[in-house]
Amino acid sequence: MPKPPSFTHAAAAVQAAVYSKHSGSDDQSLQIPLHVGDTWMEPAVGCRMQDLTIDEHPGMHRYTPVQGLPTLRHAIARHHARLSGVHTDTANVIVTAGATAGLAAAVGALVAPGESVLLAAPYWPLIAGSIRAFNAHPIDVPLMTDEHLNDVQSADQAVARFEAARTESTVAVYWNTPHNPTGRLMPRDWLEALTQWADQHNLWILSDDVYERYVFSGEHVYTRSLAPDRTISVHSFSKSYGMAGNRCGYLVAPAAAISAINRIMTNINYSACTASQLAALNALGPAGERWVASARDQYAELGAWAADRLGVQQPEGSTFLFIDVTETLKHDQYAGDLSRLLQALAEHNVLVAPGPSFGPYPNHIRLCFTATEPERMRSGVEQLARFIAGASPGQQQ
Amino acid sequence: MPKPPSFTHAAAAVQAAVYSKHSGSDDQSLQIPLHVGDTWMEPAVGCRMQDLTIDEHPGMHRYTPVQGLPTLRHAIARHHARLSGVHTDTANVIVTAGATAGLAAAVGALVAPGESVLLAAPYWPLIAGSIRAFNAHPIDVPLMTDEHLNDVQSADQAVARFEAARTESTVAVYWNTPHNPTGRLMPRDWLEALTQWADQHNLWILSDDVYERYVFSGEHVYTRSLAPDRTISVHSFSKSYGMAGNRCGYLVAPAAAISAINRIMTNINYSACTASQLAALNALGPAGERWVASARDQYAELGAWAADRLGVQQPEGSTFLFIDVTETLKHDQYAGDLSRLLQALAEHNVLVAPGPSFGPYPNHIRLCFTATEPERMRSGVEQLARFIAGASPGQQQ
Repeated sequence: MPKPPSFTHAAAAVQAAVYSKHSGSDDQSLQIPLHVGDTWMEPAVGCRMQDLTIDEHPGMHRYTPVQGLPTLRHAIARHHARLSGVHTDTANVIVTAGATAGLAAAVGALVAPGESVLLAAPYWPLIAGSIRAFNAHPIDVPLMTDEHLNDVQSADQAVARFEAARTESTVAVYWNTPHNPTGRLMPRDWLEALTQWADQHNLWILSDDVYERYVFSGEHVYTRSLAPDRTISVHSFSKSYGMAGNRCGYLVAPAAAISAINRIMTNINYSACTASQLAALNALGPAGERWVASARDQYAELGAWAADRLGVQQPEGSTFLFIDVTETLKHDQYAGDLSRLLQALAEHNVLVAPGPSFGPYPNHIRLCFTATEPERMRSGVEQLARFIAGASPGQQQ
Repeated sequence: MPKPPSFTHAAAAVQAAVYSKHSGSDDQSLQIPLHVGDTWMEPAVGCRMQDLTIDEHPGMHRYTPVQGLPTLRHAIARHHARLSGVHTDTANVIVTAGATAGLAAAVGALVAPGESVLLAAPYWPLIAGSIRAFNAHPIDVPLMTDEHLNDVQSADQAVARFEAARTESTVAVYWNTPHNPTGRLMPRDWLEALTQWADQHNLWILSDDVYERYVFSGEHVYTRSLAPDRTISVHSFSKSYGMAGNRCGYLVAPAAAISAINRIMTNINYSACTASQLAALNALGPAGERWVASARDQYAELGAWAADRLGVQQPEGSTFLFIDVTETLKHDQYAGDLSRLLQALAEHNVLVAPGPSFGPYPNHIRLCFTATEPERMRSGVEQLARFIAGASPGQQQ
């Protein structure tokens, strides 16, 4: 019997269960899932699958062009131009099967094996895995946690952090703002300095703006507005309009980059789901805009409440808090081991994501304050607060 | 002004417009699209997006697990076991965003940069692009056209073709049956010999069975039934149930391979669309089975008619004919140049796919006899037949 064939180095180097390796009750109705970025809200009326009929959209279960429905690309170009203030043509837009598939196609088009991409850390976990899947190297640039933000006061210091990590093999940088996982915004002066530095060193910029609609205080600056010639701007209907399961997002970039990304995407993914594209088109109308406004108000209140309850700074945007649990881990029952705390939380049916998925953060956890119904989220955060305070949590009710 | 950053070799090496670079009338209602593999039929009642409501499926626009809805994976395992006769657990199944995304994740998990994959040619075009996107090498093994089938009469000769192309860097083979683009089936004795040969040389087998439900004569042999330990069996709801736009397929493979593929897929794609998965689950019920039976009868009749009209062998399966137009290209107006014939056809609004997208076939075209309504398809084939016969086609009506 011959030995089975082997897997690639890349397959061994990437993780699957980035958000939680732990599980609580087998009864999912008892779980409080704060670990994945999602929303408890159904999409706006008119933007749900049940609203899309074959009478109105004959052939709606057939292929679309790889780049997306022409009507949707056109609507996205107008929408992005309105939000960002940057001139945007349809040729600057490609619809993708979620931001994840879009970023993967961008990595495939822009980053060769052995090259490196600098990641503003902590970062959205899948970008590191995507870079590894294409046999390139993600390089951490710790920057966005309170601990590092205290060191990095100026734009020059932020640039110095990136420059210290740059090598001859560096071809791109990645950052996201509003920031997953910390809830911070990257300041305008940082982005101005960083885009100038990227220009000097001729780097692509992967700017992940998927939480663009969820800013609670301060200003969201579109990186593309500062460096339109080298920015791949990453967007998602998932986060903006509560349709993460639809797997539909888009990239806005120079037309030549869109063309290269399209070639890779054709071959590794083809297109986004046709019905998801029709739902996205509807979401760009007034009903979607009302949904965003309502969601933003609720998310802001929930984020502020959760931050206050946990004694951390209120989020400026996104749907996350990233919490330093160093002190908690000093208790005997954890012995400095984050996974013990995560397991203990899971046994109380509270699921949160482990810091190491987001970079070199062995003592952090991430929670999403919009992933489940507000009352359930509040109950999970109350339990989490008791764990963090080190009070002996009561037995599960 | 710094020069813009560059693209990867892979992005330059792959194509986007594999099915047609030509276009006819701007009025799409006049076009006869025989170039893409699709169907004119709407999915079965109960399997359309409009049938999936938030009342019945609360949270249906949220993420599913990356591997797919547990209920769907379970149903697929039972379905595949019933069709193939091979014992199949849920751990052998991963739901993918179409067969394309599934194959790409498999390539990323199994094929390292610089390694090679042997392709039974002609082949489904995107597999070559997917391999190139991961910086590996697709190697053509011409085998399935009439010209080569006449040379390759025995299973031993088929194996000899593959063995002649194998090198130390070869880690996998790819074939599809029922065959896109020729409409042939790979004979059982070939598959038996080829799987033994793959065993001897410890190769992964990517067996693309997406047309498994569309067999008109002869026997479809599941490669996985002959080599379950090394076969990645590729399937699609797109082709089986008329929902190509939903981007939902699945792989069946050894559990260790599913685990490695899942790790890559998590990072470059995440999951298939949730609603598409719910539609797929419904398609595996009685309504889907009736749909398949009806489609198969109609497809068989249409394929036989088109083959007769074009003077080629009737298809044994799939939804395609692959036609040698060498004689036609000898006419002065084409001067041996396939693209001139494709352009002339496009000017008469008949779109077909170019042979070179499928391997070393400069004098072939592919047509899909199910891509558009039967009357329109017949009209396109009538025009194509006149072109092939070299009769001066009339001016467009």
